[in-house]
Amino acid sequence: MKAQVYVSLKRTVLDPQGKTIQSALKKMGYQSVQDIRQGKYFEIALADGLDKAAAEKEVERIAREVLTNPVIEEFSFELKS
Amino acid sequence: MKAQVYVSLKRTVLDPQGKTIQSALKKMGYQSVQDIRQGKYFEIALADGLDKAAAEKEVERIAREVLTNPVIEEFSFELKS
Repeated sequence: MKAQVYVSLKRTVLDPQGKTIQSALKKMGYQSVQDIRQGKYFEIALADGLDKAAAEKEVERIAREVLTNPVIEEFSFELKS
Repeated sequence: MKAQVYVSLKRTVLDPQGKTIQSALKKMGYQSVQDIRQGKYFEIALADGLDKAAAEKEVERIAREVLTNPVIEEFSFELKS
């Protein structure tokens, strides 16, 4: 089973990296970009024996306790079998 | 319209950051993690007037030309209205 975890900065937190990309895109002529924010993406391969409920619990715990800084970041995840 | 772009290292490229997270997780007792790879995640807000085909073309071009290093990375994206 595989899990995909997306970690992004909270809406209220400034994202200077995203802003830099945004202004670079504007200078390069991409007019249709209104906003861009950068985050992190993790692909986790889980052991085969795990059922879906256990996998969900494990991934949620890993995302919350290890991959995310709860002060400034939030996460979401998807499981794929 | 919003686009989500995922950039990850090609399978053939070593991912030391992912390996570090993996061994940290193992030490912390998460036994079910077999592999973990880290990538980047971008959330792009596009101008409202754009139709789906144009948005797809624009995002694909941005991902290919700006957000990805084609030597070591690959990307995928999704559009959400």
